[in-house]
Amino acid sequence: MARTEIASLGEFGLIHHLTDKLEYRQSSTLKGVGDDAAVIKNQPGVRTLVTTDLLLEGIHFNLEYVPLKHLGYKAAVVNFSDIYAMNGTPTQIVVGVGISKRFSVEDMEELFAGIRLACEQYGVDMVGGDTCASMTGLTISITCLGTAKESDIVYRNGAKVNDLVCVSGNLGSAYMGLQLLERERIAQGLAHNSPSGTPSTIHNPQSTIIPAFEGREYLLERQLKPEARRDIIEALHNAGIKPTAMMDISDGLSSEIMHICTQSNVGCAIYEDKLPIDYQAAALAEEMNLNIVTCCLNGGEDYELLFTCDIKDYEKIVPLEDVYIVGHITKPEYGTLLIGRNGEEMELQAQGWQAFKKEQQ
Amino acid sequence: MARTEIASLGEFGLIHHLTDKLEYRQSSTLKGVGDDAAVIKNQPGVRTLVTTDLLLEGIHFNLEYVPLKHLGYKAAVVNFSDIYAMNGTPTQIVVGVGISKRFSVEDMEELFAGIRLACEQYGVDMVGGDTCASMTGLTISITCLGTAKESDIVYRNGAKVNDLVCVSGNLGSAYMGLQLLERERIAQGLAHNSPSGTPSTIHNPQSTIIPAFEGREYLLERQLKPEARRDIIEALHNAGIKPTAMMDISDGLSSEIMHICTQSNVGCAIYEDKLPIDYQAAALAEEMNLNIVTCCLNGGEDYELLFTCDIKDYEKIVPLEDVYIVGHITKPEYGTLLIGRNGEEMELQAQGWQAFKKEQQ
Repeated sequence: MARTEIASLGEFGLIHHLTDKLEYRQSSTLKGVGDDAAVIKNQPGVRTLVTTDLLLEGIHFNLEYVPLKHLGYKAAVVNFSDIYAMNGTPTQIVVGVGISKRFSVEDMEELFAGIRLACEQYGVDMVGGDTCASMTGLTISITCLGTAKESDIVYRNGAKVNDLVCVSGNLGSAYMGLQLLERERIAQGLAHNSPSGTPSTIHNPQSTIIPAFEGREYLLERQLKPEARRDIIEALHNAGIKPTAMMDISDGLSSEIMHICTQSNVGCAIYEDKLPIDYQAAALAEEMNLNIVTCCLNGGEDYELLFTCDIKDYEKIVPLEDVYIVGHITKPEYGTLLIGRNGEEMELQAQGWQAFKKEQQ
Repeated sequence: MARTEIASLGEFGLIHHLTDKLEYRQSSTLKGVGDDAAVIKNQPGVRTLVTTDLLLEGIHFNLEYVPLKHLGYKAAVVNFSDIYAMNGTPTQIVVGVGISKRFSVEDMEELFAGIRLACEQYGVDMVGGDTCASMTGLTISITCLGTAKESDIVYRNGAKVNDLVCVSGNLGSAYMGLQLLERERIAQGLAHNSPSGTPSTIHNPQSTIIPAFEGREYLLERQLKPEARRDIIEALHNAGIKPTAMMDISDGLSSEIMHICTQSNVGCAIYEDKLPIDYQAAALAEEMNLNIVTCCLNGGEDYELLFTCDIKDYEKIVPLEDVYIVGHITKPEYGTLLIGRNGEEMELQAQGWQAFKKEQQ
């Protein structure tokens, strides 16, 4: 594979190369890449939503097994997911990328191909960015704008006693995909080949892991190429359901439902036997001696939607494809409970994002 | 000084701690920190502007001599500068911060105190963000939203033949401030104390450099605590001048005027004897055996405004405080020229941002 040094293009050359022939799909994009700021036309009666995510090598991704195109796709999609979680529509992104010398122009083409593919799939425009050198690994910062009618916006603080608690898709699969990748990485002995003292792993596009992933492709896809649940937002809209509270599940169901309960000043009861779990995830958890319920509750990066809705919407919810009622909202004094298969009550534990405790070095 | 480990708060605790009691000054900020996305009300007839900047330790700043509060202030202000350079008003920012373990809660308080101070000074709301662990140094990503009436927006591509080329303030001072800081850092021997193999320098709030900065305070301020030229935007507005093209000078005048000329398909003539240079900068350049004109043309980070305006506005421009006419726009075939003191013509060289070539390791 050809390797073109980024130095041969320089910053402006690289930006031009990566943003050349950008298509703008949103009529609101009046000016995209190429000036001090992008210019966006506001539609009457519509609010602007804005969310940002920072992805750092060695913390959020490991380039030993994450292809750059997938990484770009995922970096964009996780931002779209935040906008959908407000019941909005993502419209524009700006992208900041910090690149160390071990990356080539071809690497950046891959990364941006993924970002552009995600934009294409979701009808979003890339309207600006900042590309710079990095002393260490790869840094990706994406900020996403979106729109929503004021009356459509769903916050985290609107859950009411007796509301249904619903999730889309299944939970824990992205986490099990990560466990699978990590297991294979170690099995391949790559862990021992990484240079000591180097905080981030070395990206080597030549090295290809071809391990025993057969029958586990779905888990890999959930980890490497997650999708934002635009389809669920559309289905809810078409069914005439406006959730009372909503967020996306990036840190695990336990952590997220506790956010909703805290902000809404309510409690909840989540039923273990209602948790949607994919059979591949369950089988791998069994094989790896992991508790699949814990993985489902605390494994992150599913990017499914968690929402509450009024009990009167029950009949409308049931027929919705890929939406599952997992519990209900209670008075705050009941706490945030997991109800086991035998009716036993346990306090939900929000492990959530604990990188400061366990991942840093 | 007390040191509280970030692990003792966790991610959510840290975010809560840093964004507690945030004030929102913009009536358009409907929802700030605390949900999947911030919600912003759009005013009728007004466009949204969006710009983003990524600041990486070891590339954009050196914590050996940049106090974290100043760094936070600067990180915010450079984004405001981009919005003013569109002839707009900055309104909201979202902030992404990657933090390695050597930083304490107190360090982050300092950083955010600087960001909040900048927001206060410029009337901007911090409405969201993302805080995460970093394996290496400090990463700061800021995206700024702003507003402008469509008819007020000034792009880079509107310069016309015979337009005046103007700059605000003076140029090269921030660069000379950096030279001064670097010289003192080396003189203090700190360079030799940094652990080998560590790509970024170690931040030590205990170490204080007290070097011979007397009489050079202005240069330090230009480097460490730049301001965005809101005053110039207001002065132009009050004088009834709408520039034909405008941008802020972050990479040096040569590089920026070439952007305007390329995008506007024009040439320019810049007069060496018209370049605004501060006497402290000139004196230090002399002392350090640097060519002050080169520093003025290619030294970055001044965050002054570069704009072109119609020759008919000449009478209105002249009385404006801190605005200097440095040249004029020519036909494209004349190229981008620097006219020396003796009338000699030289092609402008855009060194601009060359970090990929010289700074990376």
